[in-house]
Amino acid sequence: MNQLKVGVVGLGRIGQVHLENLVYRIPMAKVIAASTPSDTGYAFAQNLGVKELYKDSLNVINHPDVEAIILCSPTDTHLPFIKAATKAGKHIFCEKPLELTVKKIEQIRQMVAQSGVKLQVGFNRRFDPNFAAVQQQVSKGKIGEPHILKITSRDPAPPPIKFIKVSGGLFMDMTIHDFDMARFIVGSEVIEVFAKAAVRVDEAIGEAGDIDTAVITLKFANGCLAVIDNSRKAVYGYDQRLEIFGSKGMSKIGNSYADTQQFYDKKGSHRGLPFNFFMDRYTESYCNEMRAFIASVKNNKPILGTVDDALMATKIAIAANESVKKNKPIRIR
Amino acid sequence: MNQLKVGVVGLGRIGQVHLENLVYRIPMAKVIAASTPSDTGYAFAQNLGVKELYKDSLNVINHPDVEAIILCSPTDTHLPFIKAATKAGKHIFCEKPLELTVKKIEQIRQMVAQSGVKLQVGFNRRFDPNFAAVQQQVSKGKIGEPHILKITSRDPAPPPIKFIKVSGGLFMDMTIHDFDMARFIVGSEVIEVFAKAAVRVDEAIGEAGDIDTAVITLKFANGCLAVIDNSRKAVYGYDQRLEIFGSKGMSKIGNSYADTQQFYDKKGSHRGLPFNFFMDRYTESYCNEMRAFIASVKNNKPILGTVDDALMATKIAIAANESVKKNKPIRIR
Amino acid sequence: MNQLKVGVVGLGRIGQVHLENLVYRIPMAKVIAASTPSDTGYAFAQNLGVKELYKDSLNVINHPDVEAIILCSPTDTHLPFIKAATKAGKHIFCEKPLELTVKKIEQIRQMVAQSGVKLQVGFNRRFDPNFAAVQQQVSKGKIGEPHILKITSRDPAPPPIKFIKVSGGLFMDMTIHDFDMARFIVGSEVIEVFAKAAVRVDEAIGEAGDIDTAVITLKFANGCLAVIDNSRKAVYGYDQRLEIFGSKGMSKIGNSYADTQQFYDKKGSHRGLPFNFFMDRYTESYCNEMRAFIASVKNNKPILGTVDDALMATKIAIAANESVKKNKPIRIR
Amino acid sequence: MNQLKVGVVGLGRIGQVHLENLVYRIPMAKVIAASTPSDTGYAFAQNLGVKELYKDSLNVINHPDVEAIILCSPTDTHLPFIKAATKAGKHIFCEKPLELTVKKIEQIRQMVAQSGVKLQVGFNRRFDPNFAAVQQQVSKGKIGEPHILKITSRDPAPPPIKFIKVSGGLFMDMTIHDFDMARFIVGSEVIEVFAKAAVRVDEAIGEAGDIDTAVITLKFANGCLAVIDNSRKAVYGYDQRLEIFGSKGMSKIGNSYADTQQFYDKKGSHRGLPFNFFMDRYTESYCNEMRAFIASVKNNKPILGTVDDALMATKIAIAANESVKKNKPIRIR
Repeated sequence: MNQLKVGVVGLGRIGQVHLENLVYRIPMAKVIAASTPSDTGYAFAQNLGVKELYKDSLNVINHPDVEAIILCSPTDTHLPFIKAATKAGKHIFCEKPLELTVKKIEQIRQMVAQSGVKLQVGFNRRFDPNFAAVQQQVSKGKIGEPHILKITSRDPAPPPIKFIKVSGGLFMDMTIHDFDMARFIVGSEVIEVFAKAAVRVDEAIGEAGDIDTAVITLKFANGCLAVIDNSRKAVYGYDQRLEIFGSKGMSKIGNSYADTQQFYDKKGSHRGLPFNFFMDRYTESYCNEMRAFIASVKNNKPILGTVDDALMATKIAIAANESVKKNKPIRIR
Repeated sequence: MNQLKVGVVGLGRIGQVHLENLVYRIPMAKVIAASTPSDTGYAFAQNLGVKELYKDSLNVINHPDVEAIILCSPTDTHLPFIKAATKAGKHIFCEKPLELTVKKIEQIRQMVAQSGVKLQVGFNRRFDPNFAAVQQQVSKGKIGEPHILKITSRDPAPPPIKFIKVSGGLFMDMTIHDFDMARFIVGSEVIEVFAKAAVRVDEAIGEAGDIDTAVITLKFANGCLAVIDNSRKAVYGYDQRLEIFGSKGMSKIGNSYADTQQFYDKKGSHRGLPFNFFMDRYTESYCNEMRAFIASVKNNKPILGTVDDALMATKIAIAANESVKKNKPIRIR
Repeated sequence: MNQLKVGVVGLGRIGQVHLENLVYRIPMAKVIAASTPSDTGYAFAQNLGVKELYKDSLNVINHPDVEAIILCSPTDTHLPFIKAATKAGKHIFCEKPLELTVKKIEQIRQMVAQSGVKLQVGFNRRFDPNFAAVQQQVSKGKIGEPHILKITSRDPAPPPIKFIKVSGGLFMDMTIHDFDMARFIVGSEVIEVFAKAAVRVDEAIGEAGDIDTAVITLKFANGCLAVIDNSRKAVYGYDQRLEIFGSKGMSKIGNSYADTQQFYDKKGSHRGLPFNFFMDRYTESYCNEMRAFIASVKNNKPILGTVDDALMATKIAIAANESVKKNKPIRIR
Repeated sequence: MNQLKVGVVGLGRIGQVHLENLVYRIPMAKVIAASTPSDTGYAFAQNLGVKELYKDSLNVINHPDVEAIILCSPTDTHLPFIKAATKAGKHIFCEKPLELTVKKIEQIRQMVAQSGVKLQVGFNRRFDPNFAAVQQQVSKGKIGEPHILKITSRDPAPPPIKFIKVSGGLFMDMTIHDFDMARFIVGSEVIEVFAKAAVRVDEAIGEAGDIDTAVITLKFANGCLAVIDNSRKAVYGYDQRLEIFGSKGMSKIGNSYADTQQFYDKKGSHRGLPFNFFMDRYTESYCNEMRAFIASVKNNKPILGTVDDALMATKIAIAANESVKKNKPIRIR
């Protein structure tokens, strides 16, 4: 087998997930090198048998044997590392968010276009079997013309206030996945956003300048309406549901569980909590997206989750923030 | 509208159900008279506007205006009252159990045959929309050849020991409904029974000579196998489920609930108890069976739930008792 | 039993439902008289044994024996008939919509207040066991502080264009139920509305000046956000769902079905359509609301579904229309 | 990490599953060598980086570095290979069926006891998260005293007649899993078996001397009753369900699906097929059982799925066959 030689940059939580998938579950790829400033990340990679380990990420990016870079370093390093990688002619898988401003994403778009490399952004949920099944139904015309899309996306608990402060805010950090999903499912562009938001979960989130509860209405170019509702804290666990309603029917997915066990006692019937958070709920999607990236590069096929997708999701998030501030619907340009 | 004139004999719990349905929900019938030894039953009927009320049931059975009798008096009165009714040429709806022995049921069969009246036995579950939907699927050939039938039938709590002693036993009192249902759904005759039984719920039931837990295997003439499981006490409520599996598919029903509400908290998701017992779970079936009886008489159409059906269910119950005693399968003659 | 003597005004589809419930299922009430211009309505009442039947509704309203009026005549008769009834000191159950303008509803409010009679508006869904179960959970504090309410309300098919033209529009005719439900469940007042709407089902609806698809965001005084989505046509049947999410949990209801039957074949598992439309889906609620009205009058207890409730729902509907026109959120005064 | 050094004997379908799990998903183990007569198996192992590959299995069993053997070769090789392995002092994971006769399993039991090695039989379903969740509930006393266990176990399609002929029959090949599961869940020994069986799926199965449809009743030492129903062909896919009912409640599992997608159209709502067959449905269980074996050996902890478990399941299967032949319940000695 002619394996694609990859280098992993950044071995935090998500970097470790990608590294383990690459080593154990994706025979088409071979990890040549990895970089991380952290001792934990270093030890993790060593244990998995990665032979070349660096502190300086440029050693990985410019490594002569490396054909593709898996970029899992902090968001503020994305632009410079992508710059280096495109210069070196390396394909790039970059974790989300690609970048936080339209300007920087457009710079990245230009670099990628000029260099001719492929860049896939880590919109992993597109590769979740549940969402993918719905997208299939829609694209096959099973629901007819899409009229109303509904996405519920609620976290089990808010991140630390420290993170909230640098996260870019709810829309940029959390809803961005839902904005991308909405575009993926509806298959059309968002042309207008109206967002209502509130601080209901924790006042400290408000004091940090963010919101924790939101209901967002989207209008699409094809006439479809959508509504996303978010909360930073669902006590009953990670709540990730979607339904799309159209002229010929509806396709709908619910939450996923570790088992199907139901318990019946004198109070009624009971089921446990769904998968705890994204690392459990979307396990398969992380492996699937990496497999897809490797396959796209090896077979020179189009990418699912492009710079343009990141750009659109970012524009929607920015418009949602503006909508909350001005309390009016905002057009997406 | 040309209403069928009926008389109700016996106004205990089930007699009151039938009377109320006849008065309020079945315009095709008119209640002319009723009889009951009880003051409560008397007052109940008076409140519903029944004009002729008697202590002596023969006054109802032989009432010149009465065309059909609704027999809800104790089991040991069934035979004599049916005798009187057939003599008087009155159609009969008789609550289950029709009678407890094969011999007496055969006597009834003869009386009914000779007199030419219609007799419907109160196998109400045949008229439950859930079971009826399954029967429709099977009779239309949707599941193909039936291979395996499964019935779960568990009560929320055992009846008083006093009742247990005169009930005829679990198979005759409780499983009889399931035996009838099995024949109704499979559309073939039971040719062999094997029953395992135990006392698990309450030792007093064992001391009264009865059992409270059972698993019964049936073999049908058409080759279908069936299994019924019974318990006198399901702490999570009245449990009434059925599934039939065949060469082309499976049809299945679950329990019914007063509402669809589900509650989610930090322990998981929760649903309340199903309908409490037969009066709630099978409410509709009681009205449907009475409507069907009235319609069969008025339009001279075949009865659903005949003396023969009662006879077969009784034979199976007797064989099940024998099987437990002898610990071997028993053929039905 | 000391029955409440009622008169039914109007015997169209919903008038017949109320009359049948009053005659057959509500022993606390006695129907003294009814009025209708239609021969069908007349015959229907005669069959149910109503003795006094009139063409002129004032004969019922002013009937000396009648204590309460059940008003099921066309919307444009509501104001004059309520005027007559309050003058005659009769209690009133009035079908929705009470009236179409704020001004007229305020007139009604004044009449009712001055006369001291009770007036219940037919917000029947408040009496549906499913919605009622959720409201109970919320009012008991089971979900904690309410954060997000979601209502899906989709009809199986649009009404005739002729009706659309006089209906007052989607928000006044259809969403009005959802606006009332939202207030009922959240237990707080709506302070702002934003509505996006479209014509997706039938262009003729647009030509008639109405919309058929909508997503409406509400903000409540207590900080709760809500979203309602509507369509005039769900091919998979009448779709009526609700969920409310709060700081301690979520309560949720789904659609209701005539039976629990599921069918499994080589393509997968299948369930039939839910109850077809409001007459089937909300059958119980119509009886429950009438029972509640009769009980409130007899026992001099507060009404559920007051003139104020109608007023608030109407104001929200008007604001929703304004929001669509101006494409901005509208405050409710 | 101090890895356990293992050798894999046999690289057919299940051998490949175990090898891949060991190489990719179980860091605690290291595959030193493998043996297979087949070219496909050989290539598969080579691709996974297994360095020592043999045709002769004794080279693996007696390999000086190998501490534990994963036995995936044909059933008739189990006894001799276990003999060799116990002599060499190697721990053994052996695929089911361990052996087909009581006598041979007892021989194995003796060898294992005398040598002091650990032997785990591949009852993988005990490691399925669904069944395991039920077993946890039962062993914690959540359902109280177990009264009735129900297992539905139906294959999507029968194996080739050629295989049927050498399979040992339905009970030994297919129901053996259910017999083991019944013992695992109930936590007591089966003392009596009654089996009804039929040929309903394919006459050729009958001609091969086997059955394809069965309902089996078990009685346990602790008084629990159980019923297992089997079919070689469920057109709606691999059907694996279980419920256990006791004095305090019920625990129940259903089928597993690749996604949660439901589709709604004018005919109703639809869900696709469950996981196709054991390789998909029980994927996780294969990895879990191997992880458990490795951990038991490394930490010198008790095995789940012992020779005794295999012996008991085999005795029940033999008794079930006898019960069908004699049409009577058979005691287990």
